[in-house]
Amino acid sequence: MKFSRTYGLQEIAKIIDVSFVGDEKFPVEGMNEIHVVEPGDIVFVDHPKYYSKALESAATIILINKEVACPEGKALLISEDPFSDFNRLSNHFRAFRAASESVSSSSSIGENTVIQPNVFIGNHVKIGDNCLIHPNVTIYDHCVIGNNVIIHAGTVLGSDGFYFQKRPHGFDKLNSVGRVIIEDHVEIGAACTIDKGVTGDTTIGWGSKLDNQVQIAHDTVIGKNCLIASQVGIAGCNVIEDEVIIWGQVGIKSGLRIGKGAEVYAQSGIGMDLEPGKAYFGSPAIEARDKFREMAMIRSLPKLIEKIKK
Amino acid sequence: MKFSRTYGLQEIAKIIDVSFVGDEKFPVEGMNEIHVVEPGDIVFVDHPKYYSKALESAATIILINKEVACPEGKALLISEDPFSDFNRLSNHFRAFRAASESVSSSSSIGENTVIQPNVFIGNHVKIGDNCLIHPNVTIYDHCVIGNNVIIHAGTVLGSDGFYFQKRPHGFDKLNSVGRVIIEDHVEIGAACTIDKGVTGDTTIGWGSKLDNQVQIAHDTVIGKNCLIASQVGIAGCNVIEDEVIIWGQVGIKSGLRIGKGAEVYAQSGIGMDLEPGKAYFGSPAIEARDKFREMAMIRSLPKLIEKIKK
Amino acid sequence: MKFSRTYGLQEIAKIIDVSFVGDEKFPVEGMNEIHVVEPGDIVFVDHPKYYSKALESAATIILINKEVACPEGKALLISEDPFSDFNRLSNHFRAFRAASESVSSSSSIGENTVIQPNVFIGNHVKIGDNCLIHPNVTIYDHCVIGNNVIIHAGTVLGSDGFYFQKRPHGFDKLNSVGRVIIEDHVEIGAACTIDKGVTGDTTIGWGSKLDNQVQIAHDTVIGKNCLIASQVGIAGCNVIEDEVIIWGQVGIKSGLRIGKGAEVYAQSGIGMDLEPGKAYFGSPAIEARDKFREMAMIRSLPKLIEKIKK
Repeated sequence: MKFSRTYGLQEIAKIIDVSFVGDEKFPVEGMNEIHVVEPGDIVFVDHPKYYSKALESAATIILINKEVACPEGKALLISEDPFSDFNRLSNHFRAFRAASESVSSSSSIGENTVIQPNVFIGNHVKIGDNCLIHPNVTIYDHCVIGNNVIIHAGTVLGSDGFYFQKRPHGFDKLNSVGRVIIEDHVEIGAACTIDKGVTGDTTIGWGSKLDNQVQIAHDTVIGKNCLIASQVGIAGCNVIEDEVIIWGQVGIKSGLRIGKGAEVYAQSGIGMDLEPGKAYFGSPAIEARDKFREMAMIRSLPKLIEKIKK
Repeated sequence: MKFSRTYGLQEIAKIIDVSFVGDEKFPVEGMNEIHVVEPGDIVFVDHPKYYSKALESAATIILINKEVACPEGKALLISEDPFSDFNRLSNHFRAFRAASESVSSSSSIGENTVIQPNVFIGNHVKIGDNCLIHPNVTIYDHCVIGNNVIIHAGTVLGSDGFYFQKRPHGFDKLNSVGRVIIEDHVEIGAACTIDKGVTGDTTIGWGSKLDNQVQIAHDTVIGKNCLIASQVGIAGCNVIEDEVIIWGQVGIKSGLRIGKGAEVYAQSGIGMDLEPGKAYFGSPAIEARDKFREMAMIRSLPKLIEKIKK
Repeated sequence: MKFSRTYGLQEIAKIIDVSFVGDEKFPVEGMNEIHVVEPGDIVFVDHPKYYSKALESAATIILINKEVACPEGKALLISEDPFSDFNRLSNHFRAFRAASESVSSSSSIGENTVIQPNVFIGNHVKIGDNCLIHPNVTIYDHCVIGNNVIIHAGTVLGSDGFYFQKRPHGFDKLNSVGRVIIEDHVEIGAACTIDKGVTGDTTIGWGSKLDNQVQIAHDTVIGKNCLIASQVGIAGCNVIEDEVIIWGQVGIKSGLRIGKGAEVYAQSGIGMDLEPGKAYFGSPAIEARDKFREMAMIRSLPKLIEKIKK
C-alpha cells in the first residue's frame, strides 16, 4: 500500500508512538509485506531469525523489535510489538469504513456497465466500461475492475487475507488493506472468492477465465489468458504466469511460481514451482507423464509379486 | 434452444448475413450444440476434423465455414466464422436483458411458495408450488423450478457455462442461452452453483438432494433420487443416471455417463463412464474393491521388499 | 433442542396422536438425535437393529415403532412411523417461519456491531458486540454469534443439515431445527457454509479461524483456536478438538474425533479418528511420516524392479 503522500520518519513514529533511528525527515511512501516491498516502504519483522532478510530487503524503513545496526540508506522504527504496530499503521492509513449504502457513492462505474440487483459495491471501487456484474456479488472497498469484465452471481472480491499469527492469547490477525485488481476481458464464475492483498494487490490478468467456486488467496497474481476450472484453490503469494491451464479441484500451496503455459490436471496438489509448458498430475503432483508411468507400474505390481513368489 | 416459431432458412441467413445451401423456406426450429441436436436445429462446425460429425448429426441445418456437399434432407449456412455467427444468432433469439427489479414481473411463482428476502429472480423464470427459496439465492433468466423444491441460501442457478474457444487474440466465449431445470421434490444446499445449458438444459431430476457447495456444469443431467454430498464438482455434458450416490469432494470429468445406482466414494476423480450399481474410489477412480486391494498391496510392499533383499 | 418448558408425556403423545407407555406426567424437556441426547430428551428409533442403542441411551423417552419392554425410569411413545412423528414434533416446537424483513426484529444485535448491506438475519438470532458481518451473508433463524466475530461476504450460517432417509417413495428429510453457535473472536471467510444441528448445535469454538469456502456440516463441534484453510469440508457429527490445523481442500468423514493439536495436510481425506498432536496426510490419510515413507518407497520401486528382473 502506497500512502497518498510522502511522510517523514518522525511523523510515522508519532502515529504509533515508537522511537526511530534515522533522519526525522527520512521519506516514507508506503508499507508492505516482505515479498512485495519497494524502496520507500515500511516492512516489519519481529523474530531475530528474519532480521537480516528484512534489513536486506528492498524496504527502506524497518519496523523491528530490537535496535540493531541500521543499514546505510535505511531507517529503523523500534517497537516492542512490530506486528501490532504494523496493524495500527495500516488501520491509520486505510481503516475499514462501514457502508452506508449498497453501492457506495465514492465508487465509479463505467459506461454501459450493468450492475444487477443485490450487488454490494464498497467504498472507492473502480469499475470500467461494458462490464456485467451479476446479482448478489460483493465487491469490497478499493477493488479495481477493468473493461469488459463479467462477474457471476454470489462472487466475492476483496475479502480479507487468511493471515494470522499465533500469539500467547490466540491468533492475531494481520489487517488486510490491499486490493483486488481485475484486468480487462476477465470472466469470473459464480460463488468465487478472491481475497485482497494484505498490503499489496491480488491480480487476475487480461483475458483470464475462472469457472465457479474458485478460491484465490491474498497477493496471488494470475497472468493473462489463463483458464482456471471449477473448485480450484490457489493459496496466497503465488505467481501464475500467462496461459496456464488449471483443471478442476486443484490446490496450489502458497509462495510458488507456475511457469507460462503449464497445465495442471484435475485434483492435483501443487507443492513446488512448475516449469513452463509442462503438464502435471497427482497429489502431490509430479510431471504428468511420470505420474502415469508410476500408476502403470503400480498396476503391474500384483503380477510381478506373483512371479517373485513363484 | 427452440425458437418461438419455425423460421425459414433464408430468414436465418439474413440475420447473420451469410449465404445458404437449401430451400429458402427450409424449416429452422432451433439451435443447439452437437451433443443435444435434433431435427430442425442449427449446429455449428468450424474445423474440418469435425465436419462429418456435424453433417451426420441429427441437426438438419449446419452452420459451416466451407461449402461442402449438402447431405440429403439438410441445409447449410456458409459462414466465415461459424463460432461468432452462432453467438450472433443466440444473441438475436435470447439476448441478455438487464434486470429492472429483484424479482422480475415476467416470472411466475406458484402457490404457497416462499421467497425469502434478498433473492434475485430473473426474467421468464417459472417456480412451482410449495417451494422455499432461501435468502441471497440467484436465479438467472429462463430457469424452471418444479413443485416442493427447497433451495438454500447463496445458491446460484443458471450462471453461464464455462465454454471458451482459444482464438488468436485470446479466449472467445460461446454464449450460454440454455436453461436450468429443477424437477419436483429436489433440495439444493447452500452456496451451490448450477450453470445453465449452453443451448440446452442442465437438469436436476425428481427427488434428488444436493448438499452445500456442489458445482454442476452446463448441460449435465442428474437423474431421479440421486444424493450428491458437499463440494462435489460435476463437469459439463454428463449424464448421471437415477439413484446415484456421490460422496464429498468428488470430481467428475465432462461427457461421461454414470450408471444407475453407482456409488462414488469421497474425493474420487472420475475420468471414465461408470457401470450401474458398482462402487468406485480413487483419483483416478477404479472399482472400489480393486482400489482397496491396490492399497493393501502397497501397504504390504515394505515387508516383501525386505524379504527380497534378504 | 430443549423445549421452552417441561411437558408431560401425555401432552406430547397428544401432539402426534400416538399411544404411550409410562406415567402421563413423565417429564419431557426436549428432543434430540441419538448422539447428543440427555435425560429428559425424546429420541426416535424405527429399526430393530438400533432398538437397544436407543433404549440404553441417555434419552428417557423413546419414540419407537414397537411396544417393547420399557426400561426403568424411562417412557415410550409408540408410533407407526417414528421418523415422521419426530418431524411432526420438531415442526410443532420449532416450525419454519418465513421472514417478513431482511433483518428480523425478533433478533438482537450487540453494541458496535456492524451489519453491512444485503445481509439476511432470520428470526431469534443473537449477535454479540463488536462484530462485523459483511455483505450478502445469510444467518438463518436461531443462530447465536458471540462477541468480536467477523463473518465475510456470502457466508451462510444455519442452513439445513443434509440428512435424508431412503423410503419407498424417495428420500424423506429429517427436519433441521438445531442451531449454529459461533463463539467469541471467531473469523469466518467468504462463501462458507455452516449447517445448523439437526436438533443440537453446530459450534465453532473461541478464536478459531476459517478461510473461504469452508463447509461444516450439522452437529459438528470445532474447538478453540483451530485454523481451517480454504475449501475444507467437514461432515456431520464430528468433534474437532482445540488447536487443530486443517489445510486446504481436506475432507473429513462424519462421526470422528480429531485430537487436540492434530494437523492435517492439504487434500487429505480423513476416515478415522486422529490422535492429538500428530500430523496426517493422504486420501485416505495415515500419519504423515508413514505416508511420506510410502511415497518414497513407491518412487524407489522402478529401480528395485529393474534389479530383480536382472
